[in-house]
Amino acid sequence: MSKIRAWAAHGPGQPLDPYEYEAGPLGPEEVEIAVESCGLCHSDLSICNNAWGISAYPCIPGHEVIGRVVALGESTKGLTIGQHVGLGWTAQSCLHCHECLSGNHHLCSQVVPTIVGHYGGFAERVRAQWTWVIPLPDALDTSASGPLLCGGITVFSPFLIHDIKPTQRVGVVGIGGLGHLALKFAAAWGCEVTAFTSSEAKYEEARAFGAHRVFSSRNAEEIRVQAGTLDHMLVAVNVPLDWSALIDTLAPQGQLHIVGAVLEAIPIAAFDLINGQRSVSGSPTGSPVAIADMLQFAARHHIVPQVEHFKMSNVNEAFARLESGKAHYRIVLDADFGSTEITPTDRRKILG
Amino acid sequence: MSKIRAWAAHGPGQPLDPYEYEAGPLGPEEVEIAVESCGLCHSDLSICNNAWGISAYPCIPGHEVIGRVVALGESTKGLTIGQHVGLGWTAQSCLHCHECLSGNHHLCSQVVPTIVGHYGGFAERVRAQWTWVIPLPDALDTSASGPLLCGGITVFSPFLIHDIKPTQRVGVVGIGGLGHLALKFAAAWGCEVTAFTSSEAKYEEARAFGAHRVFSSRNAEEIRVQAGTLDHMLVAVNVPLDWSALIDTLAPQGQLHIVGAVLEAIPIAAFDLINGQRSVSGSPTGSPVAIADMLQFAARHHIVPQVEHFKMSNVNEAFARLESGKAHYRIVLDADFGSTEITPTDRRKILG
Repeated sequence: MSKIRAWAAHGPGQPLDPYEYEAGPLGPEEVEIAVESCGLCHSDLSICNNAWGISAYPCIPGHEVIGRVVALGESTKGLTIGQHVGLGWTAQSCLHCHECLSGNHHLCSQVVPTIVGHYGGFAERVRAQWTWVIPLPDALDTSASGPLLCGGITVFSPFLIHDIKPTQRVGVVGIGGLGHLALKFAAAWGCEVTAFTSSEAKYEEARAFGAHRVFSSRNAEEIRVQAGTLDHMLVAVNVPLDWSALIDTLAPQGQLHIVGAVLEAIPIAAFDLINGQRSVSGSPTGSPVAIADMLQFAARHHIVPQVEHFKMSNVNEAFARLESGKAHYRIVLDADFGSTEITPTDRRKILG
Repeated sequence: MSKIRAWAAHGPGQPLDPYEYEAGPLGPEEVEIAVESCGLCHSDLSICNNAWGISAYPCIPGHEVIGRVVALGESTKGLTIGQHVGLGWTAQSCLHCHECLSGNHHLCSQVVPTIVGHYGGFAERVRAQWTWVIPLPDALDTSASGPLLCGGITVFSPFLIHDIKPTQRVGVVGIGGLGHLALKFAAAWGCEVTAFTSSEAKYEEARAFGAHRVFSSRNAEEIRVQAGTLDHMLVAVNVPLDWSALIDTLAPQGQLHIVGAVLEAIPIAAFDLINGQRSVSGSPTGSPVAIADMLQFAARHHIVPQVEHFKMSNVNEAFARLESGKAHYRIVLDADFGSTEITPTDRRKILG
């Protein structure tokens, strides 16, 4: 059972090919998950193409895993065979540093991303440290929930980091895979929600996701009219914007929070921060507890990513769809390697 | 008693001249303060020279006032004639907006700075709304405390804004008028304190102010060695720095906080914020309650600005000293207009 079939890229710009690897003995802290489905995130594309200069090949992408526990190392905690679980961007952390012991495992300097130097979830099975294998609430619609494990926690985490209040006004720039989830979370959080998008075609949908107001993200004048009206602005794009106009939308004590991988340096005027006591911040994904809380919140509020389904064997088509910018709004790959049924042996463990 | 003698600039780059103005009847919310001394802040220079494009002339600078209440408008609250008080950057706010009613009066959009469109404290008397006239603790060394009212609150406020913990590690860049007070506050707050200065001559003094470690602010390599070691970095300079190296000194969740009037845009890489969940922020001075709390804290911990005294009539010499960069570390002007004694009428009010 230690041979694992997967899809792998062997270099930047290469299509994904079928790939089989020998996973070896399960580590004491490791969990093996039989993959049911896996979200396709823009960072899968970035890592396959080595856009951030940190990739390792063969690269098996996939870090928005929904599946069931099929094997547990002897030192794993809190999980059972057959349990329905999710796995996101992070597959492992040290568990003993200041960050891990503070509950901020996602900020551990020894963190192992699921798809960098580790084999990811576009596979029949995937492994991860027990800490990062998060039980799914029963009420969650699991068929479309893969994207919550990375995209979802990425835009949910700022609500926790900044202790956003339901009385506050939240803006979201970029209504795509991340942004549409941010709108849903902000609305369920009880906030006044403003969407900024470059696409007029998305205005109606943005309202359906929970936005009370929608404006153009490309029209600096339209943005400037909103000066001083937002307590939090979440930037979920990875392209340069009119940063000065965006910061001006912030009310006193307002916070501009970046989760999009903007590569160009952002020019910030000190006075724009000083005068209104404002800040510019960023965050990666979130801690195990934040992911678990986000999943409970999503289940309670019926928040489900809006997705297009592809068979995992059509992964290259799915990548092309993602690159076209037309994915509506997120892609989920359904594993089709054959049976991922729980074996009779496993079933005996579950039933005791 | 409504004629007030003062020192005023009549245009950018002009020396200050004796100037007398008719203050008119005291407004119902106004307090009149007989000035004992007044700190000289770098922003007095900026406003006299219209460096920020917001000045009004004649410009009477001075916004770090120590004095005694000599007249109270009929609607003023909480003050008594003869009371020892301070007045800082702000002389008035609207009192009814969201910010004022939330206790963040310093972020009120209708705020009137003491020296912009209002006559400041390089004068025998100065007026301000009662809200901004802060009673001084008895234990405070008032002769040198003027600079606490602007410089002090500017570097104290970040401790409140960011809820800095005594277990945390605080860095201060720029050990001048603001920075030396930041070191004293950080040490009294119980933090581990690191100073960054461009002047080796200040290393020993920085330690005396409370720094546990001192490094060069001009040597990017020396800064980079400190990567990941600071929870908070307070920027108290107004010149461009190696921003990337400074942000790298931040530990996960670290905060770079700017109080220096840096005029050039600061280039921020989104990944530098995202990866460590870090932020860049700024703040102006502080609210009336923050100023009062800061003064109590300073009195309890015997925190006194290190100052050079000048007679107020030598204000132009004092300005030249400030511009030379050699002021050690802050300048206080002692009022020498003649008697600022409390009148017999006032004394009757005090004694009832």
